[in-house]
Amino acid sequence: MPVLHSYEEGAESLRVEDRPVPRPGRGEVLVRIAAAPINPSDLAFVTGVYGIWKPLPVVPGLEGSGTVVATGGGLLARRLRGTPVACAASDERDGTWAEYAVTPALACFPLPGGVSDEQGAMALVNPLGAWGLMEQARRRRARAVINTAAASQLGRMLLRLGQRFGITVVGVVRRAEQVALLRSLGATYVVNSAEPDFDAQLRDLCVRLDARLAFDAVGGDMTERLLGALPRGSRLTLYGGLATQPSPILPHHPIFEGKVLDGFWLPRWVASKNPLQLLLVQRSVLALLGTDLRSEVRDRVALEAARDALAAYTRDMTGGKLLLVPNQRA
Amino acid sequence: MPVLHSYEEGAESLRVEDRPVPRPGRGEVLVRIAAAPINPSDLAFVTGVYGIWKPLPVVPGLEGSGTVVATGGGLLARRLRGTPVACAASDERDGTWAEYAVTPALACFPLPGGVSDEQGAMALVNPLGAWGLMEQARRRRARAVINTAAASQLGRMLLRLGQRFGITVVGVVRRAEQVALLRSLGATYVVNSAEPDFDAQLRDLCVRLDARLAFDAVGGDMTERLLGALPRGSRLTLYGGLATQPSPILPHHPIFEGKVLDGFWLPRWVASKNPLQLLLVQRSVLALLGTDLRSEVRDRVALEAARDALAAYTRDMTGGKLLLVPNQRA
Repeated sequence: MPVLHSYEEGAESLRVEDRPVPRPGRGEVLVRIAAAPINPSDLAFVTGVYGIWKPLPVVPGLEGSGTVVATGGGLLARRLRGTPVACAASDERDGTWAEYAVTPALACFPLPGGVSDEQGAMALVNPLGAWGLMEQARRRRARAVINTAAASQLGRMLLRLGQRFGITVVGVVRRAEQVALLRSLGATYVVNSAEPDFDAQLRDLCVRLDARLAFDAVGGDMTERLLGALPRGSRLTLYGGLATQPSPILPHHPIFEGKVLDGFWLPRWVASKNPLQLLLVQRSVLALLGTDLRSEVRDRVALEAARDALAAYTRDMTGGKLLLVPNQRA
Repeated sequence: MPVLHSYEEGAESLRVEDRPVPRPGRGEVLVRIAAAPINPSDLAFVTGVYGIWKPLPVVPGLEGSGTVVATGGGLLARRLRGTPVACAASDERDGTWAEYAVTPALACFPLPGGVSDEQGAMALVNPLGAWGLMEQARRRRARAVINTAAASQLGRMLLRLGQRFGITVVGVVRRAEQVALLRSLGATYVVNSAEPDFDAQLRDLCVRLDARLAFDAVGGDMTERLLGALPRGSRLTLYGGLATQPSPILPHHPIFEGKVLDGFWLPRWVASKNPLQLLLVQRSVLALLGTDLRSEVRDRVALEAARDALAAYTRDMTGGKLLLVPNQRA
């Protein structure tokens, strides 16, 4: 399995190694991993800019799917035995890019019949993230929202959830092909940040559609361009840092124009829910996994190829997910 | 009176000119100005980075005091006739750096007996600003707040209001003399951003005092240093841009640490109040004008010397207010 040795060197420091199958403690389960995707948050994790740092060396991978093959005891864990699940990685242990992973029983969600291992492997990070962001938009009674990196898997999910809930999603992309792609998926409003009149286009759309909320996965200069386009009193929620640059904020946006910058992070959003709310969210998200919240798969790769796959994914994040498939021939 | 001719050239473009005494329209009053201060927001106004732009040429000055000598009719305006008032400048007319200024009757506040023209001239921008910021701290049940440019007049007011309301104000300054000054005013916690261990000092204080709210008048790199010191889930409210630089925000602060950046601007805060609330605020602020909300005066200068005074104020903003005194010999 791929093992990370240095946050500074990032993906370059991934080495294929053998590690013993981990043993679950009380309340934990051992999952035989069927599939685990490469997400933008994995790129952040291996370069040390994610919100969680684990002692090195460590196996990356924030989510996956598989079957619970052993438990360390505890009511919930024992009930999961033999069950196909979607799971999030433990905060304190090796991740999902492995043949086997130990994770808390609470971080496992039984997959309903009809959900494939592959869709199940991508059930959490993007679908829950898109659901959580859309929840913010609904709670604020937004009529329209801006979203950047809109051709991403999460961006497409937001677009479809917007159609479901009657909230217009204005997609911001940076290449003409992505404009075409999103239009083919039914998007009415897509703007290309590489075009010279992008800022004026976006400003006009904000006024016309009454958009006062933006979701920004990019950061850097994009944040300021969004703030410049949004009307007074708007809110910008940063949920990713694809630009890997700080966002320079002009003081007049917060001061005179009353614009607010905040952030969205899935684990914090999940932690803000009580168990009943989480159960309802989980049910909604699993029910939409084949439709609004589906992910496209670009390719399946063996664990040994994780480093190359990570490099390929960094070069092109639009073309669908790369899935690691530990216990099958890729 | 000093007349501004160019936002690009700012104070350099101020020229002393004669203008006819303006005539009040309905709901407006003519105030014979006794005194008008130079505030940081005036510096922002003359350089075109304030939240209000007026057509040029224009007389600057955002607040002042004086006597209502004529009205353009309307119930409220007529009742103010002959009354000493503190006043805010009209958004659409020449400002208070003049012998006479026309302003809406609603922007005039009768001065209680015992309040001098001079303190009355500085009754709005800083005292209301300090009151508004402290209201945010009280509403959020803050136990401690950070404030930058803490040796400013507004900074000292915040310190005293904090003592009144039991909220610890941690002052951030950038010179050793300012540390000494604030300590002499009873401040327990003052940190100097020029010291090499400033960031560690501030981080320790945030933990020790449970400070989760910062007021930032500086912006630029200071914003990021504050965000770095504040604990997860904190809020930073920008209320000035003394650094005249954008604030570079690292994405992990809003995303993973849930820190929020917003802004405070006095006119917006005032507009958020209903008339009764405003009356109560006005009463509280006027009652504290001689004590918690007093301003120190460094010097009185004639209108003709406004340009030099502005330059002197830009060089040293700590040493007390410069007051323009239009209808007296300075």
